[in-house]
Amino acid sequence: MEGRGSGPLPKIPGPSLKRLSQGSRIGIRDYISSIFIRRLRKELMSNLEFFRLQTRQEVLALYPRFSPVGTEEVELAAAPGRVLASPLAAPEEVPGFLRASMDGYAVVARDTFGASVGAPQYLEIRGEVPMGLAPERGIGPGEALGVPTGAMLPEGADAVVMLEYTAEHPDQTLEVRRAVAPGENVLQPGEDVRAGEWLFEAGVKLRPQDIGLLAALGISRLTTYQKPRVLILSSGDEIVPLAQRPGPGEVRDANAYLAAAQVQTWGGFPLLKGIIPDDFHALRAALAAALAEADLLLISGGSSVGARDLTLAAIQDLPDSEVLVHGVAIRPGKPTILAAVGDNQPLLGLPGHPASAAVVMEVLGRPLLARLAGRSPQRPWGRTVSAALSRNLAGASGREDYVRVRLRREGDTLWADPVLGPSGLLSPLVKSDGLVMIPLGVEGLFKGEEVIVRLFS
Amino acid sequence: MEGRGSGPLPKIPGPSLKRLSQGSRIGIRDYISSIFIRRLRKELMSNLEFFRLQTRQEVLALYPRFSPVGTEEVELAAAPGRVLASPLAAPEEVPGFLRASMDGYAVVARDTFGASVGAPQYLEIRGEVPMGLAPERGIGPGEALGVPTGAMLPEGADAVVMLEYTAEHPDQTLEVRRAVAPGENVLQPGEDVRAGEWLFEAGVKLRPQDIGLLAALGISRLTTYQKPRVLILSSGDEIVPLAQRPGPGEVRDANAYLAAAQVQTWGGFPLLKGIIPDDFHALRAALAAALAEADLLLISGGSSVGARDLTLAAIQDLPDSEVLVHGVAIRPGKPTILAAVGDNQPLLGLPGHPASAAVVMEVLGRPLLARLAGRSPQRPWGRTVSAALSRNLAGASGREDYVRVRLRREGDTLWADPVLGPSGLLSPLVKSDGLVMIPLGVEGLFKGEEVIVRLFS
Repeated sequence: MEGRGSGPLPKIPGPSLKRLSQGSRIGIRDYISSIFIRRLRKELMSNLEFFRLQTRQEVLALYPRFSPVGTEEVELAAAPGRVLASPLAAPEEVPGFLRASMDGYAVVARDTFGASVGAPQYLEIRGEVPMGLAPERGIGPGEALGVPTGAMLPEGADAVVMLEYTAEHPDQTLEVRRAVAPGENVLQPGEDVRAGEWLFEAGVKLRPQDIGLLAALGISRLTTYQKPRVLILSSGDEIVPLAQRPGPGEVRDANAYLAAAQVQTWGGFPLLKGIIPDDFHALRAALAAALAEADLLLISGGSSVGARDLTLAAIQDLPDSEVLVHGVAIRPGKPTILAAVGDNQPLLGLPGHPASAAVVMEVLGRPLLARLAGRSPQRPWGRTVSAALSRNLAGASGREDYVRVRLRREGDTLWADPVLGPSGLLSPLVKSDGLVMIPLGVEGLFKGEEVIVRLFS
Repeated sequence: MEGRGSGPLPKIPGPSLKRLSQGSRIGIRDYISSIFIRRLRKELMSNLEFFRLQTRQEVLALYPRFSPVGTEEVELAAAPGRVLASPLAAPEEVPGFLRASMDGYAVVARDTFGASVGAPQYLEIRGEVPMGLAPERGIGPGEALGVPTGAMLPEGADAVVMLEYTAEHPDQTLEVRRAVAPGENVLQPGEDVRAGEWLFEAGVKLRPQDIGLLAALGISRLTTYQKPRVLILSSGDEIVPLAQRPGPGEVRDANAYLAAAQVQTWGGFPLLKGIIPDDFHALRAALAAALAEADLLLISGGSSVGARDLTLAAIQDLPDSEVLVHGVAIRPGKPTILAAVGDNQPLLGLPGHPASAAVVMEVLGRPLLARLAGRSPQRPWGRTVSAALSRNLAGASGREDYVRVRLRREGDTLWADPVLGPSGLLSPLVKSDGLVMIPLGVEGLFKGEEVIVRLFS
């Protein structure tokens, strides 16, 4: 049930589980859905000192225990958006030669000193440098060689006079009407990149210009982190596959598709592993099988306390399972589970309401994916925009509150219009452009206040 | 040559071309690199009234003449980030039934009116609704049925009393300690989506939550625009392939890789088509071949006037070619070509300096790609962040000036530090996080001024 939760907790009290596991199928209808059992459990739980919501910061502080995924070699052309797994240094310098950055004449700069329109200097044109080839000759004092942009300067030249500031005379005399300093209109060898210079640290997500620089250096293969394999299990007797028309009481598996799309958008490799009924043994077996091939396992579970308890019981029954988080102080999204299973594999149990699941994925799932993908901590400005809140908003007592907003420009003002609606609905999320967070301990935000909107895309 | 340019222009004067096409290879070394010819041409050109830079807005205003690419069907799971090619309406309503949004008891709301801790109301518990099934019975006045979150409400019920506000007595009597209004703690049929409701317009780029909503509706295949096929030709005698170690005067094909990575990042499908020497016939043949399979053809050309003229001559010689833009009033990026060829196919000629090419792709290439991809105009807030400029910046007279900046947080202030350096270098681009634009006609920006940074990623 949205709006309740619990903290790190011991195994579910034995007796009730034992009593209910007499039959071969321990289903939600037998085990959990009984309101009496739930109430009993609730009363037990509320007496436990472990019962406590964890803050977002506390959850994020657990992530360093999870290791990044393995690495793989990729071709440079396939590397945009991939995360470097080892630091890279430049194997050579760029440019590799003294290069003209303007069309004009390669000269010895001091030959031009004092030149002006009124008092030009005169040099002897000794030919041109062809593109892509070494100059056939050098120049000495009093000489000039024509150079197109990008061409190599001849030995002896240290600057380029732009074509605009010259005139040629029929006798191969060059009239120079403006002085140039040494190094003017040229790129020095190594000016872009020095040989041996460190270019990128491990953990960098490669952008187009990074790819360009690597291409300039001839680095055609890179060691990157693999895309984390994120398996997504849906659990719930009420969930039917996409292609099936839901009967009374049934719904399609929307949350798993939403989570998979988020994973894909954020650079992971999502795999939908189907729907498991609310049955303890089936769920436990499915979790164990999925963990065998997942870097991260997401469980898109039900919203009822019963469904969540069943999920929790199945997780706790896995070998070497440790429930790290059971309940987070955010709204929506309180009934979130984080566990480490087996050899410290992360498992994230999402709330059942779609808006809750989407917010938990944004706030907790995305940083976890980034951690597994080997990414360095995100840049502090992120994908945000500042806007003016268009109405008062009350916060959630004791929780960080994430409010969906739609952005609207009106003259010079960008307004953030809260999109309200129960977290059981998808459409408010679809109508929104991002989230505004009301911090823990803040009673609310006022109309007209400047807020930071965390953009969905 | 960076720093010069020309406007829409007639065919290059015939005589010089004819004179130089005596040999079988009309190469840059023969044709264009001659400074005398260049000067002659420059003098001719400067007399033409066509000679004029176009503003960014004028260039963008040309884009509606280009048609979006064709469409294709994709599976929902492959649709994140794809662009819808036709509007979508909901084939059915969501939820399809009256649904509990809290764990508790389905009741007739008016039975609870006036209930409080001090004066509870009493109802008769008639069982529970199992998840995923229709309730086995309805309820009447004075009756209640246990419901987990997400379950279907029984006939006759119109609200859910949360478990927290009830107590069960051994005789199946439910004590209700708080009143609920009709509709409380339930989701109405069609509350999320009404049947027939329009969900998305054509041109929408699908986000994860959009995918979730489509999944809830059972829409498993979508008609989307294809990813535009963007072919990239590199031209220049000095350009060598990535795998080759450049000799004196040679450089690797970095710009093409940069442009390809941009195209891929922005949702296009890039194809590198290799390096063409500065030869009129070879270039013309390569252009014609590439256009046959491209939605958009990019030419990553040289920076010299000669190389650009050769490219322009080859473009102009293609059947039904129309040069729409030759020179844009932006810095860097002036020597940009936009042409429509054959059946109105777009061809974008990029400047040779890497920073110029990257800026032109950001400012002009990206919107062109969006147009071809069928995308509706971008949201007005874009991928920007506001920051304080850390030093004075002079603008470029007569041009929009795009300055690379690196972002740096210092206390509460986000500073934009200009990253200066010739546009022939890649590394300043790699060190930058985005661009600050100094508008046309603005002399400069002051230190401390708030600027909008257009983020690279």
